[in-house]
Amino acid sequence: MSAAGVREIAEAARRASRSLASLDEAKRNRVLEAMASALEAAAPDLFTANRQDLQGASSSHSRDALPASTLARLKLTEQKLDEMVEQIRSVAALPDPLHRKLDAIELDAGLDLEKVSVPLGVLAVIFEARPDAVTQIASLAIKSGNAVILKPGREVEHTAKMIVGALRNALESEGVDEDAICLVLERESVAELLAMHDLVDMVIPRGSKSLVESVQANTRIPVLGHSEGICHIYVDRAANQELALRVIDDAKLDYPAACNAVETVLVHRDIAPQFLPKLLKRLRGRQVVVHGDEQVRTLNNEVQPVAAWHCEYGVPELAVGVVDSLDAAIEHIHKHGSSHTESILTEDTSAAEKFLREVDAAGVFHNASTRFADGFRYGFGAEVGVSTSKLHARGPVGLDGLTTYKYVLRGQGQVAGDYRGPNARAFTHRREAKQ
Amino acid sequence: MSAAGVREIAEAARRASRSLASLDEAKRNRVLEAMASALEAAAPDLFTANRQDLQGASSSHSRDALPASTLARLKLTEQKLDEMVEQIRSVAALPDPLHRKLDAIELDAGLDLEKVSVPLGVLAVIFEARPDAVTQIASLAIKSGNAVILKPGREVEHTAKMIVGALRNALESEGVDEDAICLVLERESVAELLAMHDLVDMVIPRGSKSLVESVQANTRIPVLGHSEGICHIYVDRAANQELALRVIDDAKLDYPAACNAVETVLVHRDIAPQFLPKLLKRLRGRQVVVHGDEQVRTLNNEVQPVAAWHCEYGVPELAVGVVDSLDAAIEHIHKHGSSHTESILTEDTSAAEKFLREVDAAGVFHNASTRFADGFRYGFGAEVGVSTSKLHARGPVGLDGLTTYKYVLRGQGQVAGDYRGPNARAFTHRREAKQ
Repeated sequence: MSAAGVREIAEAARRASRSLASLDEAKRNRVLEAMASALEAAAPDLFTANRQDLQGASSSHSRDALPASTLARLKLTEQKLDEMVEQIRSVAALPDPLHRKLDAIELDAGLDLEKVSVPLGVLAVIFEARPDAVTQIASLAIKSGNAVILKPGREVEHTAKMIVGALRNALESEGVDEDAICLVLERESVAELLAMHDLVDMVIPRGSKSLVESVQANTRIPVLGHSEGICHIYVDRAANQELALRVIDDAKLDYPAACNAVETVLVHRDIAPQFLPKLLKRLRGRQVVVHGDEQVRTLNNEVQPVAAWHCEYGVPELAVGVVDSLDAAIEHIHKHGSSHTESILTEDTSAAEKFLREVDAAGVFHNASTRFADGFRYGFGAEVGVSTSKLHARGPVGLDGLTTYKYVLRGQGQVAGDYRGPNARAFTHRREAKQ
Repeated sequence: MSAAGVREIAEAARRASRSLASLDEAKRNRVLEAMASALEAAAPDLFTANRQDLQGASSSHSRDALPASTLARLKLTEQKLDEMVEQIRSVAALPDPLHRKLDAIELDAGLDLEKVSVPLGVLAVIFEARPDAVTQIASLAIKSGNAVILKPGREVEHTAKMIVGALRNALESEGVDEDAICLVLERESVAELLAMHDLVDMVIPRGSKSLVESVQANTRIPVLGHSEGICHIYVDRAANQELALRVIDDAKLDYPAACNAVETVLVHRDIAPQFLPKLLKRLRGRQVVVHGDEQVRTLNNEVQPVAAWHCEYGVPELAVGVVDSLDAAIEHIHKHGSSHTESILTEDTSAAEKFLREVDAAGVFHNASTRFADGFRYGFGAEVGVSTSKLHARGPVGLDGLTTYKYVLRGQGQVAGDYRGPNARAFTHRREAKQ
């Protein structure tokens, strides 16, 4: 596909986004139901297409061979398809993120300002080998009134094409512009999409850390994503040590590959002699590889040195260090962290509140596992992504992250000149209670 | 100053931002009062420094000579200084944008999530010849708990240096890290600042369109600003024509250089024969230069052709076109507008609501002048800037635009594993009423 081709697709998506933005909630939910049904009906074709992708993946030259974990993600099973259909229906059941009155201010009698949530416009989603990424992101986009341009990894091309075909048929059957869900396939189209800041409102990379970093480094379009989750747990001198052992165990082992898994445990020096042996024993019993600073290593010669504190292990492996104070822990976190999620374990409320106030991160926790940093656990209904940037959205991002707002002003012919000069009218600026 | 120099300054600002973030409202307001007093006390030195800048500006070789309007902005008068001092005190009087509970969700008994407003961190402000820009942005930064790095235009260097010196003395006298307000002067430091996305959280360009565009094109740091305001007024076939004449007059002439002044008027063809002669007469009487499409030009041979619809005149000059329908008006606005502020004039409520719903812009108005798109008129207390981007902040931006949020989770040792498996606890996800 030529550059003009990708631009034409993006322009078509922009047009579709404009018509999508004016659909009411009931209509968008009917479209989602049609998408779920179309996916069910297309099952035989989807499995055929997925077999093609799987054959392509396993017949590659050995140097291109995909790891088993990628093949597992790529494979479409009956169960996975059922879950994809179910997921679309659960998105339909979420509260509407659009047309919410975020604020309301009367500027003067008969001059009323409202701040209303509206779709962003056009999303570009760049992802790797997962067929379920297609339906998940497409359903979140339609629910939030956004058009979406999908760029799948080449491993999943046949499956993605077939899924998108089914979803576009569903849009058409509901009389909705099918360009609300677009697909681009060529490798070069990524660079083209990333350059279209006039047509694409947000880029969402879904996949490896290197994919996210490469997207972030190559576009001026806002990126919803995070490349790193280097989460810390600080065990304060006033910590409940049994609680600490249990929380650290969960934060590392509940799902070590997750971005909200803990990577570094910092222990206050006053309790280090007592707590560290218990911690090391617990971690050894759970087959966790431990790296430690000098003080930790003198306690146990199985502990490896810390190669770098700024490290996301992503496996049952972590770093342990001793700090002189709460301030030193905060400084360490600011120096080596990724502003994702940081937790303090302590029974000292004022130490906890200082940590919660002073640590600059998307999530700051007291006596809780870092694993709670998640859109579903936070009660957002859906998770669009996790953001470690500070603007627009920070932390786990729900459907709201796919919306912006506009100011709607309803008047009766008022002009700015009325509010100036010797006979100026005064603004009332009366704020309605928020809804 | 070397690159290392600018980086060291940015690192110092980052450190200062961390201590600033934990100051309570009363303390930040005391600091602002100290800044106002320091500025008053430094008056003689400020006028001396400003005379140096003015002499420098007027003694430049003629090819570098500054326009009279720039010299007027550069000149510090007694009145301007009084206003600057007053402005700092009025910022102190604004409601606190920090530590506001934006949301609160109970995840489970004893596991409480809060979404709390916090400062962004470090702002970089790049501006041109205005001394008052220094105090305005520094006071907004301190109020919102942000450190700020100021890069003034070289015309205003001496004055800016003296003002920043006074403000830093005020910080020091209050025991606050003086690097919360930093100054960089060298021309090269702009490029260096724009590359420091690890240390600078937001860039705010204040000045000409070319300054804003050049900043936007040269950084991955989020930019708060807008380079264009191409606002439209659509006069519907059901418009009150007297109201329309009055609103258009105000929207163009109240302050033609403002970004919220109208640049294009679109008239429904059904009322064009009756309305256009009145409009052209009114505009001629007000010395407004009119450009028009063919239909407008046949009515009056003084009307010039439209060179480009995407044009911000910024002076008493505008374009007038005839459209076939409301849909055509919306399409014209999407094609040629800058998504700033768009207004429909009509007595037909359903046409108005369609326009308000479908037009994609930061502000959509019904029967009101585009000039109302302004932070003060919206009742925000202060205007940090106007944004035509869709993320983080859109439209006029108040103090909230200098904040982000973090999620604070307070628990009692809960772990993610408790909420999984056969004996899983259920999340309650009970939302507190918003404050």
